[in-house]
This record gives sequence, structure tokens and C-alpha cells, in this order.
Amino acid sequence: MEEKDLERAVRDVLRRMRASSMMNLKLATALMERVEAEAARMGVNAVIAVSDAAGRPVAVHCMDGAYIGSYDVALGKTYTSVAFQMPTARLAELAAPGGSLYGIQNTNEGKIVIFGGGEPLYADGVMIGAIGVSGGTAEQDTKLGAYGKNILKEVIAWK
Amino acid sequence: MEEKDLERAVRDVLRRMRASSMMNLKLATALMERVEAEAARMGVNAVIAVSDAAGRPVAVHCMDGAYIGSYDVALGKTYTSVAFQMPTARLAELAAPGGSLYGIQNTNEGKIVIFGGGEPLYADGVMIGAIGVSGGTAEQDTKLGAYGKNILKEVIAWK
Amino acid sequence: MEEKDLERAVRDVLRRMRASSMMNLKLATALMERVEAEAARMGVNAVIAVSDAAGRPVAVHCMDGAYIGSYDVALGKTYTSVAFQMPTARLAELAAPGGSLYGIQNTNEGKIVIFGGGEPLYADGVMIGAIGVSGGTAEQDTKLGAYGKNILKEVIAWK
Amino acid sequence: MEEKDLERAVRDVLRRMRASSMMNLKLATALMERVEAEAARMGVNAVIAVSDAAGRPVAVHCMDGAYIGSYDVALGKTYTSVAFQMPTARLAELAAPGGSLYGIQNTNEGKIVIFGGGEPLYADGVMIGAIGVSGGTAEQDTKLGAYGKNILKEVIAWK
Repeated sequence: MEEKDLERAVRDVLRRMRASSMMNLKLATALMERVEAEAARMGVNAVIAVSDAAGRPVAVHCMDGAYIGSYDVALGKTYTSVAFQMPTARLAELAAPGGSLYGIQNTNEGKIVIFGGGEPLYADGVMIGAIGVSGGTAEQDTKLGAYGKNILKEVIAWK
Repeated sequence: MEEKDLERAVRDVLRRMRASSMMNLKLATALMERVEAEAARMGVNAVIAVSDAAGRPVAVHCMDGAYIGSYDVALGKTYTSVAFQMPTARLAELAAPGGSLYGIQNTNEGKIVIFGGGEPLYADGVMIGAIGVSGGTAEQDTKLGAYGKNILKEVIAWK
Repeated sequence: MEEKDLERAVRDVLRRMRASSMMNLKLATALMERVEAEAARMGVNAVIAVSDAAGRPVAVHCMDGAYIGSYDVALGKTYTSVAFQMPTARLAELAAPGGSLYGIQNTNEGKIVIFGGGEPLYADGVMIGAIGVSGGTAEQDTKLGAYGKNILKEVIAWK
Repeated sequence: MEEKDLERAVRDVLRRMRASSMMNLKLATALMERVEAEAARMGVNAVIAVSDAAGRPVAVHCMDGAYIGSYDVALGKTYTSVAFQMPTARLAELAAPGGSLYGIQNTNEGKIVIFGGGEPLYADGVMIGAIGVSGGTAEQDTKLGAYGKNILKEVIAWK
């Protein structure tokens, strides 16, 4: 291995290490507060959850007036996004009758959610966790989940 | 705020507060007895459950000859109606293949029921709980759940 | 078999058949209402459940202000009383550390309750179901369960 | 009823109504942040949960480095505190072998936790929810739960 290649490999490892340790309670709640503000602006009372890269919850917030049923769904969306490393809206297509993953919703002990609102979160190209939003229509949840994913970089910089 | 507006606001708050504390065992059983009489008239042996606004059961009655399996279903219908604040017959449409909530039935640890017979109960525009009926065909259960919802006002007045 | 013995055998079968079909929603709620009145007199907000001889719930009533946690406990007491055909206060003794049934509480998928308040219900010497009461101290629950068992005959006669 | 008595009764109802609607996401997270700061000061990485008066989670925060297993425990402590309206440290005594509620830990589908760290939260004498803390020793969790209960009034005033 040449020195230049070695240097590149080390940088890559460092970048991944830094990214993979980036998810914490402070980042999760900062991100969630931004998504909560957007949900309020849209008139949606949502449950918002953030998990780490192992699919373990870091924080969950239930906005006032959110559906009772949304707690489990929001958590399921974070788990699902991490578990299959894709937005739940994408999994919804694959899990529909006739789709290549039809039946995936019966695996993983009831923790799989197959409609929009869950998004893996990436920093420097590394998956650091996921966000799950539940409380509005599938369309609104999908929009809010994507919003969370898109503003992550900004939240990290600002933190 | 003018005095007239203030008065209206206060009245509104009082109305919501009164309604939200309205569900109790006496109301639940009075309502269930009316639904039981209607079920008997239709020749249906049903399980009938009423929950509060948090989805907690207040009372459950199993009519003689009701299916053993209906106990869990009736309770699930009350939980579902409260959890997503809609009749289970409406959720049935959204949860069907191709619907925007396809897969919702796999969330909330097996407590979601996606066929008719569950109805949120409202008093003065405030959700005070739900009724769940199981034992007949989906059509009969849906009719009996709706019957319960519709006579609630009368039962409250008469109580 | 002599005629006298045959007659006795038939009478016995008839008695058991009559008793075993005696539990129904009307009897269950009539009994529960009496126990509710007694609980109110004692200042206890209880959950009261009655099951049939198969341990299946017939009716559950949550008195206003009852503990949320009492719903599952009251149902468990009816199941336990039928499952082992003894008052739960008696099972409590056998299930204590050092007792002959220590560990029984870990069987039957979490439905065993090992403190007082559950009582098998007998008619004409035949077990027809059970009552379970939860909401007061163990002593109060035990007293209320026994009260239910003791007034059963009177409730049947009056019904 | 004299006018003075009536006025007192109305004030009492209003006080209870105001208190019972007091729990919300803003209060829950404000309280949790104070408890998190105290946990950090004690060197404990805790999971902290707050539920409403029905035992439904309002918010959950997992401090960096908290045990994975503490998520379920913290939520269980909030549920238990509400379900039986007492601190989990008190229930621990009653649920010990020989105690009057020995075996209570097997009820409520695994949601009962019988060691310290859960506390019902009261405002104006009305239970408005509960806090559950898990991550340190039982003694540390108990101290942190009690801390949360004790500063609630201050957090409400400051909010």
C-alpha cells in the first residue's frame, strides 16, 4: 500500500468513526425540536422518535394531542429504517402484495412499519440512526420524516 | 379580548372539561345494555366493550353464546378507535392493500383491529372513549358499533 | 344397577348440568353489582371480573377511580381461581418461597395471581366460574372476593 | 348548600380540572432536563421517562451511555407508578416475599417494575402522570425519581 492510499484509508476510518459516534441525546432532541416545529406549522400533532444505528431508541417525544397509537408506529418507523437501511416509504412499495418483500411486515416481532415517515439518518455517508414520525396522514408523515433527514446536516453544524 | 369573546372561550373550556370527565362505569354499562338489547333483537351474541379516552377498558360484557375469540376483538376495536380516533370500519379502508395505512394492523402489539364494529364516542365534540362490538358478521358489528355511537347522547340525557 | 341407584345417578347428572350452565351475563352482572355496592361502602374503587368455569371472562367492570393496574389483576384472579380451583388467598400460601407450589406464578403465560381477591364460584357443589376483585389492599380484595362467593346463592335465588 | 360552600366546591372542581390537564410535552421535557442534569452530576447515565395520568408515555430520553436494558425499565417504572398510584420503591416492599402484594410483578403483561426510580407526579393534589428513572443502582434511581417528583412544582412555576 502506498503512503497516499494508506492516508486515504486512515482518513476514511476516522470519518466513519466520527460519524458513527455522532448520534447522541443532544443531537436527537435538537433534531426532533426542529421537526416538531415543522409539524406544528403543518397542523400535525405527531410522535417523533430518533434511534441510533443499532435501532435502539435515543429519544421519543409525543406532541400534545398526538394519537395514542402513534407512539408504537413512530418507534417502529425508526427501527424499520435502520433494520433495512431504507426509508419506510420505499419499503412500502416493496412490501405491497406482489412486491419482492411482501410479508416483510410479519418479521421482526411486529416492529416493522411499512408506510412513510421513517428515514435513515446519514452523516458523512455513514448511517448514524433513524427518525420516525407518526401522527398525520401517510403523506404528511413522509414529508416530516424527509424534512428531518434533510435538515440533519444543518442541525449538526449548529449544535 | 372582548367580554363576549372571553365568555365564549370560558364556556368552551368548561364544555370540554365537563365532556372529558363524562365517561364512567354507569354511562358505559347503560350504553352497553342498550347495544346488547339491539344485538339480541338482531340475533347476534356479541361481546361489547367500552373504553375511556386513553383506550383503557371501563367495562366488558360477553353475551351468552358469544364467541370466545370475540373478547379480544371487541377490546381491540375500542383500543383502535381511540388510538387513531376513527371508526375501525374507516381504518379498514386505509389499511387495505394499496391503502395509505396498509400494515397499520401489525403495529401496537396486536391491539389493532381493522374491520368494523369500533367507534370513538363523542360528547359535545370531545372524544370521551370508544365502543367495540364483536360477534356477528363485520356488517352486523359495524351496525351495532354505530348504533352505540348514535344513541350515546340519548343515554347521557337519560342517565 | 338398581333403580334407586340409577335415579340418584340421573339426578346427580341433571344437577351438575343445570349448575354448569348457570353462569351467564345476567348472573355475572347481578353478582358484580352487589360486590360493587359493598366495595363502595368500604371506600374501595375496585375492578371486578367474573369468568365462567373455563376461566373465560364473562364481564368486567372498572369502578370509577380504580387503579389502571387492577384490570389485569382482577382478570388474573378469576383465571387463577378457576385454573387451580382454589381461592387465590389459598394459592398465595402454597406459592410463597418454601411453599409446595413456589414458582406456580411463572406458569400460564402471566395469568396467575397469587394474592387474595379471587374465589371459585360454586352452585350445588359444582364450580360454575370465579370472581376476581382488585383495587384495595390485599385484605380488602380478599374480603370482597369472599363476599361475592358467599352471596352467590342469594343472587341466584333472587335473579 | 350555602354560597360559600358552593364556591369552595366549584373552586375544587376547577383546581382538579386544571391540574389533570397540566401534563404535556413541554412540562415533561423541562422536568426531564432537570433530572438529567442531576443524574450527570451524580455520574449516572440514565434513561428518563415521563407518562401521563393514564400511564401513556409523553417523552423518553436516553442519556449517552445509558444501558440498553434501561429503556424498558424506565418506561415500566412510569407505568407502574401510575397503575398502582405509588412510588415503585414502596411497591418493592409490598411485592417482596411475605409482602401483601407478592407476585404483583407477574401481572400487567411484564410492565410492572418493583424497584425504586418510579414516582407518581402530583399537582395540586391530583396525579398528573409519573416519572421513571433507570440506569444507576436502585438507590441512585430512587433518589433521581424522588428528585423529579420534588422539583415538579418548581418546574411548573418556572415554565
